[in-house]
Amino acid sequence: MSASEIRKDLVRDNWVVIATGRAIKPTDLPVPAQGTAVKKSGFCPFCEGNEMVTPPEILANRIPGSKENGPGWTARTIPNKFSAFSLETPFKTETNGIYSYMSGFGVHEVVLETPEHDTELHENSAEKISEVVAMLKARHLSLAGDERIKFIQTYKNKGLFAGASLGHSHMQTIALPYVPDEFRGATEYARNSGNCLFCHMIDQERKDGSRLVYESENFIVFCPFASRFAHETWILPKNHGEDFGKLPEENVAELSIVLKMVLESMVGLLNDPSYNIIINSAPVNVAHEPGYHWYIEIFPRLIVQAGVEIATGYHMNPISPEWAAETLKASIEGKSG
Amino acid sequence: MSASEIRKDLVRDNWVVIATGRAIKPTDLPVPAQGTAVKKSGFCPFCEGNEMVTPPEILANRIPGSKENGPGWTARTIPNKFSAFSLETPFKTETNGIYSYMSGFGVHEVVLETPEHDTELHENSAEKISEVVAMLKARHLSLAGDERIKFIQTYKNKGLFAGASLGHSHMQTIALPYVPDEFRGATEYARNSGNCLFCHMIDQERKDGSRLVYESENFIVFCPFASRFAHETWILPKNHGEDFGKLPEENVAELSIVLKMVLESMVGLLNDPSYNIIINSAPVNVAHEPGYHWYIEIFPRLIVQAGVEIATGYHMNPISPEWAAETLKASIEGKSG
Repeated sequence: MSASEIRKDLVRDNWVVIATGRAIKPTDLPVPAQGTAVKKSGFCPFCEGNEMVTPPEILANRIPGSKENGPGWTARTIPNKFSAFSLETPFKTETNGIYSYMSGFGVHEVVLETPEHDTELHENSAEKISEVVAMLKARHLSLAGDERIKFIQTYKNKGLFAGASLGHSHMQTIALPYVPDEFRGATEYARNSGNCLFCHMIDQERKDGSRLVYESENFIVFCPFASRFAHETWILPKNHGEDFGKLPEENVAELSIVLKMVLESMVGLLNDPSYNIIINSAPVNVAHEPGYHWYIEIFPRLIVQAGVEIATGYHMNPISPEWAAETLKASIEGKSG
Repeated sequence: MSASEIRKDLVRDNWVVIATGRAIKPTDLPVPAQGTAVKKSGFCPFCEGNEMVTPPEILANRIPGSKENGPGWTARTIPNKFSAFSLETPFKTETNGIYSYMSGFGVHEVVLETPEHDTELHENSAEKISEVVAMLKARHLSLAGDERIKFIQTYKNKGLFAGASLGHSHMQTIALPYVPDEFRGATEYARNSGNCLFCHMIDQERKDGSRLVYESENFIVFCPFASRFAHETWILPKNHGEDFGKLPEENVAELSIVLKMVLESMVGLLNDPSYNIIINSAPVNVAHEPGYHWYIEIFPRLIVQAGVEIATGYHMNPISPEWAAETLKASIEGKSG
C-alpha cells in the first residue's frame, strides 16, 4: 500500500483510505472464504533474527553490545512495511468533480512487544508490559514532535477476527495530519456542559457500581453503558488528562498491572478471543475542542459486524455491559482472592 | 434477545442496541475463537418441513392447497426469533444520570428466499430472484403502513465474515421508530446544493467511466469512489426515487437480472466470499430532509475491520474501486460475451 488516497465518503460524511498504487489479487487478502486461523507458524518477520526483512528500526530497547537491526532487542518499533501513509507524500487535497481526496501523508509504525513468537501480551510480566507501554508513550511523544502531525492513534489487533494478519504479538500506531470526527459526541458534551464527559462517566460509574470492574489508585476499569461490543471494557485515568503522552512515568507500572489483569481475565473468561486494544488521546499540534480524556478501550471480537450494523451505524450487542462487568469482576476477584 | 435497550453512545453521538433481557454465555456467541464456517449441515430451521420451529409466517408464496406454516412454499417471511425489537414494547426514552436509552420498539423479520437449503441467492434463476425482490418490496410497503415506523432497513448477511449464523440463504428487514444518521453526508449535500448526491454521482460515473461496471435501461452499477470495502459495488435506479417501496412493478425483473449478474460475477471472481447486501431507502411516515435515493450496496467481506478502523471511523480498503470495477466488468462481459 504505497500510493494511497484518503477519499471523502460523501454519503456518510466520512473518509476512506484507499490504496491506489497497486492491484492486489483477491487471493492476497487476509480472509479466506471459509476462515482459518491467523498464521502462527512458518517464517515470521517479527521474530528475533529476522530483522533483515523489516524496514530499519525506529526505536529499540537493546541488550548492551547488540547491533541496530540485528538480534538482541526486547522491544522494537519499525515502520509498517505495508503502510498506506508516508511522510514523503506531500499533504494536499485534490478534487475531481463532486469528489475530493487527500494524499496519504502520515506515519504507520509497528511496535514489536517481544522477540518471543508465542508470548501474547497478557502472558508477559507486568514489568515487561511496562516496557511496552513506555515504548508506546515514547513513540507518541516523538510523533507529536512533528508539527505536521495532528492526531495519533495506537491500537492492537489480536487474532483473525480483530484484523490481525500476523500472530506475533505487536501493536501499531498511525499518525495523521487531520483529526477524525469520532469523538464528536464527547466534544459536543464538553461544549454544551463545560465538563469532561469521561470525568462525568467516571463519577456516575463509581456511584452506580453495576458496570464497575476495578479501581486502582489512579485508574478505573468499567464496561461502558453503551458498549458497542460484547465484553467491551475501558481503562481510564481517574485524574483528567487528555494526552496519553503525558501519562506520568510513575503511573506506567500501575497501568501495566491493571492492563495485564484485565486482559488475563478476559482471555480466560472468553476462551482466547480475538480482541482489539485502542488508546484514545486528544489531537496534537492543533487548537481543538475540549472534551478529550485519554483512555484505553479493549473489545473482544466475538461477533462479526453484520449488514444491519454497517447499514444503520448502530452496533448490536447481545451481552449487557452490566453482565459483562459482573463476570469480569468476579474473574479478577477470583484470581486475586 | 427479547428485552433490549437502544443506548446512546455519548462519545460517538450514536446508538447501540443492547440486549438486557438475558445473560448469553460467551460460548453461545457466533464466532468461535479460531473461526469455523457457518453451519451448513445439521438441522436447519429455515428448511421446508421445519416450519414448526419458526414463529408463525407473516407472508408466504404458497403452492395451491398447501397450509399456512407448513411445507409447500416458495418464499416465506417470518419474524426473527431472536429479535431485539418488538411492536409490543411501547416506544419511550428514559434517562439515568448522564445516560439515556430508548426501548426496543420495532420489527425484525427474516425472508426465506427459497425452501432449498443449498441454493445461494445468485444460483437462483432471475425469475426466482424477482419473487424475492417482490416479497422484500411487499414487506417494505406493509411495514411502512404502520405510522409508528420511521425507517426500514433490508439486508443480507452471507457467510461467516458477513455476520451470518445460518447457512440457508435468507434476507432480513428491521423497521424502527427513529431514523439513523448514516446518510448525513447525502442530506447535507442536498441541503447545500439543492441536488441529489446520488443523481450527481450517476452523472459523474457515466462521464468518467473508470468505476462503471454495467448499465441496463433503468439501473446503473458502479464501484463507489470512496468504497469502504474491497470490491464494494452499488446498483442504483437511474431515475431519482427515494423509496424502495416505489420500485415500479415493471422494473422488478430487470433489477433481478442485474442483481443476479453482479452477484454471480462477484462470487466467481472472489472465490465464494462472505458478503452483505444492503437496500437503502428513505425514511417513511416522517418529514425528512431531502437527499435520499434508494439503492443497493453489495460488499464482500474480504478483510476484517481492524482496531484502527473502529478507532478512527475510517475504513481501510487495499483494493481501488477502479480496479474492482475493471475486474467485475471484465467478468460480466466475459460471461455475457
